[in-house]
Amino acid sequence: MTGTMRAVIKTAPQEGCIELRTVPIPQIGPREILVRVKAAAVCGTDVHIRHWNAWAQKRMNPPVTIGHEFSGEVVEIGSDCHTVKVGDRVSSESHIPCNNCQVCHEGNRHVCPNTKCIGVHQDGCFAEYIAIPEEIAFVYNDPNLPWEILALMEPFGVSVHGVMDVPLATKSVAIIGAGPLGEMGILVAKKAGAAKVIVLEPNAQRAATAKALGADAIIDPIAQDPVVAIRALTDGYGPHVAIDFSGSSAGIASAMQYLRPEGQLTCVALPNKPVAVDIADFGYRGCKLRGIAGRRMYENWEEMRGLLAAGIDLSPIVTHTLPLEEFQQGLDLTEQGKCCKCILIP
Amino acid sequence: MTGTMRAVIKTAPQEGCIELRTVPIPQIGPREILVRVKAAAVCGTDVHIRHWNAWAQKRMNPPVTIGHEFSGEVVEIGSDCHTVKVGDRVSSESHIPCNNCQVCHEGNRHVCPNTKCIGVHQDGCFAEYIAIPEEIAFVYNDPNLPWEILALMEPFGVSVHGVMDVPLATKSVAIIGAGPLGEMGILVAKKAGAAKVIVLEPNAQRAATAKALGADAIIDPIAQDPVVAIRALTDGYGPHVAIDFSGSSAGIASAMQYLRPEGQLTCVALPNKPVAVDIADFGYRGCKLRGIAGRRMYENWEEMRGLLAAGIDLSPIVTHTLPLEEFQQGLDLTEQGKCCKCILIP
Amino acid sequence: MTGTMRAVIKTAPQEGCIELRTVPIPQIGPREILVRVKAAAVCGTDVHIRHWNAWAQKRMNPPVTIGHEFSGEVVEIGSDCHTVKVGDRVSSESHIPCNNCQVCHEGNRHVCPNTKCIGVHQDGCFAEYIAIPEEIAFVYNDPNLPWEILALMEPFGVSVHGVMDVPLATKSVAIIGAGPLGEMGILVAKKAGAAKVIVLEPNAQRAATAKALGADAIIDPIAQDPVVAIRALTDGYGPHVAIDFSGSSAGIASAMQYLRPEGQLTCVALPNKPVAVDIADFGYRGCKLRGIAGRRMYENWEEMRGLLAAGIDLSPIVTHTLPLEEFQQGLDLTEQGKCCKCILIP
Amino acid sequence: MTGTMRAVIKTAPQEGCIELRTVPIPQIGPREILVRVKAAAVCGTDVHIRHWNAWAQKRMNPPVTIGHEFSGEVVEIGSDCHTVKVGDRVSSESHIPCNNCQVCHEGNRHVCPNTKCIGVHQDGCFAEYIAIPEEIAFVYNDPNLPWEILALMEPFGVSVHGVMDVPLATKSVAIIGAGPLGEMGILVAKKAGAAKVIVLEPNAQRAATAKALGADAIIDPIAQDPVVAIRALTDGYGPHVAIDFSGSSAGIASAMQYLRPEGQLTCVALPNKPVAVDIADFGYRGCKLRGIAGRRMYENWEEMRGLLAAGIDLSPIVTHTLPLEEFQQGLDLTEQGKCCKCILIP
Repeated sequence: MTGTMRAVIKTAPQEGCIELRTVPIPQIGPREILVRVKAAAVCGTDVHIRHWNAWAQKRMNPPVTIGHEFSGEVVEIGSDCHTVKVGDRVSSESHIPCNNCQVCHEGNRHVCPNTKCIGVHQDGCFAEYIAIPEEIAFVYNDPNLPWEILALMEPFGVSVHGVMDVPLATKSVAIIGAGPLGEMGILVAKKAGAAKVIVLEPNAQRAATAKALGADAIIDPIAQDPVVAIRALTDGYGPHVAIDFSGSSAGIASAMQYLRPEGQLTCVALPNKPVAVDIADFGYRGCKLRGIAGRRMYENWEEMRGLLAAGIDLSPIVTHTLPLEEFQQGLDLTEQGKCCKCILIP
Repeated sequence: MTGTMRAVIKTAPQEGCIELRTVPIPQIGPREILVRVKAAAVCGTDVHIRHWNAWAQKRMNPPVTIGHEFSGEVVEIGSDCHTVKVGDRVSSESHIPCNNCQVCHEGNRHVCPNTKCIGVHQDGCFAEYIAIPEEIAFVYNDPNLPWEILALMEPFGVSVHGVMDVPLATKSVAIIGAGPLGEMGILVAKKAGAAKVIVLEPNAQRAATAKALGADAIIDPIAQDPVVAIRALTDGYGPHVAIDFSGSSAGIASAMQYLRPEGQLTCVALPNKPVAVDIADFGYRGCKLRGIAGRRMYENWEEMRGLLAAGIDLSPIVTHTLPLEEFQQGLDLTEQGKCCKCILIP
Repeated sequence: MTGTMRAVIKTAPQEGCIELRTVPIPQIGPREILVRVKAAAVCGTDVHIRHWNAWAQKRMNPPVTIGHEFSGEVVEIGSDCHTVKVGDRVSSESHIPCNNCQVCHEGNRHVCPNTKCIGVHQDGCFAEYIAIPEEIAFVYNDPNLPWEILALMEPFGVSVHGVMDVPLATKSVAIIGAGPLGEMGILVAKKAGAAKVIVLEPNAQRAATAKALGADAIIDPIAQDPVVAIRALTDGYGPHVAIDFSGSSAGIASAMQYLRPEGQLTCVALPNKPVAVDIADFGYRGCKLRGIAGRRMYENWEEMRGLLAAGIDLSPIVTHTLPLEEFQQGLDLTEQGKCCKCILIP
Repeated sequence: MTGTMRAVIKTAPQEGCIELRTVPIPQIGPREILVRVKAAAVCGTDVHIRHWNAWAQKRMNPPVTIGHEFSGEVVEIGSDCHTVKVGDRVSSESHIPCNNCQVCHEGNRHVCPNTKCIGVHQDGCFAEYIAIPEEIAFVYNDPNLPWEILALMEPFGVSVHGVMDVPLATKSVAIIGAGPLGEMGILVAKKAGAAKVIVLEPNAQRAATAKALGADAIIDPIAQDPVVAIRALTDGYGPHVAIDFSGSSAGIASAMQYLRPEGQLTCVALPNKPVAVDIADFGYRGCKLRGIAGRRMYENWEEMRGLLAAGIDLSPIVTHTLPLEEFQQGLDLTEQGKCCKCILIP
């Protein structure tokens, strides 16, 4: 396809410098597809890119169109594409692994050291069109799934990855932090059969949402000692699993104390500086700490398909929908925590 | 405690010979507890004992009080008991493993080759009182759990063992046969987050119950080709897991055909004669067949605790409640498949 | 590359009809590589293709160059290849999965229902050159690894898949049948730390080879009751794992009897007709039966890399090396069981 | 049995206060056995008890006979014992779990919150006789296993627990610290089929021993950057597993950097103060950290049985053997790191 389109571009390697520009529609290679973006979601990473933090500096080489969470309609396919058709409704993985290193071969493409990310290493989805490898597209041709929901598949997958890492059926679980991923996590933990979902969240409004989404108990970790409170809710043993969506040192430290022996602390949000951990106390109970990165490719995507088929309702996660032009407001809302998920419509 | 009690006894090693008698209340050893039986459930095994089949002949040495599924109140504890108190409401494992062989050491006490079973190798629970090792008692002091429900814990544990063997969250599962264990299996599979629970059951009444318990789809394997029908419900791939509660050769054979590659066929009911299986077709798809015996001790019991805490409702499973004296009718109803579970009240 | 080459071709859909012909060197697509075949190994499947059995009839559409186990040097790469270079020494997976179906997404590409096999669905390696997708090539640039050994990677991977399916370190294992895959299996089981490797093999010469490869005990299942003999070697409990490389009904049936409770029978060879199995006896002990197909892509390939690095010596497996022209003799030796592995040199 | 015996006793709750005294031979209960101690091993914990550190203060109530690693001959059994006979050669678990809490029920008796330890909560093995529950005794009636080796089973089990937590066959592993447990760990990792065992150890003598025990490579983490050195030995990816036997903050911190994506850092030695860990860097690679406590009861004991059967040779671990009277020297050698394992003969 030829012609021009509007795109939100990081124009220079410094603070700010994010602008709406008119650029050519991307050309696709033989194994790529062109997607007309119908909805795109704003992520905290996009805020980091605006502020040009260390993470962004290491990875990006502006100008680059940002945005990596989206849904859309396929409008063109490459000459060597076989699985996606023009007209398909798709969402997409944001990681493009190399598929050929030892890490990929070992079944861990989600942490391939050679990964390229859309909206970071190559042009992203805050635009009218995006070109992606056919391999990372997921087709969802059920017209009952709105574009806004399909645009959430990438972040939803991170939450699913974290929550499904340990089978939760019949178990007790602590969810630390009820931001967008934590809220999705509550929904997934309930669907996955957790016997008790306990949410730690000091923000009253988020706590109320957590309750509405099905949390069995809410603890305010500032008003209460979380170790005492959570033990009281778990027969004194602590929960089998704690999942951190907060990135808070205090949240991680207390989870390491209250976890049940042989329990697991799953870190979905990752704190931006080293955390002092009492490995001895934690280790004497035989506990585990594990980091979560991206989405297992593509086990988590099939799990998401199962969750959607089972009727999981992600609509409460979308609190704001804006036209693409108002991307700065979307970034602001996200940075200030004033939205759950903000959708841009190109 | 001294005195006498009523007990249902297999009196001689032949067909029939099950009678209500008055016998001494059992005396307990230092690590045993005496339980006043409040409710006992009839099992197909009790029917086999009545008919003195090969299984019973190999294991029993009458006279023995039969029955192995029950709940009751603790009325006396041995001198070396530390975990159960007089007055506790308990249910109980029916297997007493040796705890000392290699199989027990490897974490597989449920299949210990030296297992003794209550109601088979030693006096059981179709009586006013039963003596059991403290170790196999489970305390449930929640007064909201009726005695009839607590009496189901042993068979419920078999169903939980079968259903929880493979994590079902987000997966599709076929449940073959909606008898008592199959019905419990539907409840557990739904709680455990299965995305789609498909029940294969030719009996219309059982099919209706399965639907009421939450099955997403019902297939009549006589009216329809189950392979075609189940593939149509699973995007053509077949279900991730099939769980056989029927013991039927035809049910097992078709499951081996429709299972998804790398799927598992879990056999809870075990057919009483060899089944001809096409290992090649099954094996080329990398599938598994696994047998289920008893309850993992005591992982499945903790899972049951979690399921009860999560509000699973087993009350539809109990369809008949009779006084102990009417045990012959309980055995008849069970043999004829006219009840789901029949409870005896001593 | 242009020009002609010699190739062994199944020329027509009937018994026999395998001929050496001169044909054009294959042309490669953008994601393919051209390999100069240095060594190719004969497989039982090639014999089945000669006899045009049911399996072959369902899959092949002659004329097709046969052969799917090989090693060679890369002589040309497609325009969209990035991981393999001209001059690389490679071996290759024989399965080309679709990478896009639910089975592939679930991490089970080795049983993808859309798999194409080289030497079956498309031209294979009994030729001077073969074109394969870059994705399935494995580079082994260690010049100490002879071409004959690299040609064994495909069948070696099946054996590794079967043996590594259950961690064997400190466990006892029965290996049923000491043909080529069984012999590799003995080597792998010993390397993987099995405490006791017991081989069941009636053929005296194969039994001697098994002993030389490190088997701790050999049982002749015709001269001895295998159930009695193997229990005597395993403290009466039976082995933790049995791996069938024989495809024999009797071997499978006795393994189902002697397996330790919760043990696994792994079927690598798959019997060509239904086997009557006593699921009850097997299932009451909580045992498992699982089929093995292909190689986990590409976990097993990385495990093979580890085994080669750890110094596993596959050279005893190659008993015959012939020029490509003598392919009929290679097929004969394989069919008659007179060789372990026969290598063809194009 | 009546009479008196010599025993090494912590006499008072303060620094030092460890004395050889003559005390009555312990009396056994119905489920206990009396063992004539043949060999006992000194542990770092015994040194902590001498110094009355915080750990000891929380758990001990002197006077208590110390020592928890031993072997001996059974000389008397309680009235309710069924699995051990007078004359049996035994080693023993040191943890006595409650067997009845949720943690025990979940299969995690090794981290039971109600555990009692011999030589800490109750009289231990630095004495001529010790009384233990029958349940924790392990019988090894092979007369070829010397008493000194059987006395190592308890610490050996900790090392086995750490090394066997992740299946190592075909994988690369880093072992941090070649003290007694680390040296055992090298032996176990090799037996378990690790493709490459890399030892990090700055002490030249220990490094030499590590090499002699089979380490494939040794890194001095003071002379070399361990991250650079270990990546160079693992194709740039880092090892699949790192096992810390050092308790050193630096060792743990560098392991978190060099681990392969989705790798596991297994902490066997536990640092005595909080360690600052960069969870983000570690977590973005999807890595895990897990603590190891005690021995899985009794899976690890059966694994040890398998390792002994497979011929693992622990004799290099015993470097000193002293009469019981010289216990102070045994404690000194252990505290100063001048021995590997020191055995006391009562």
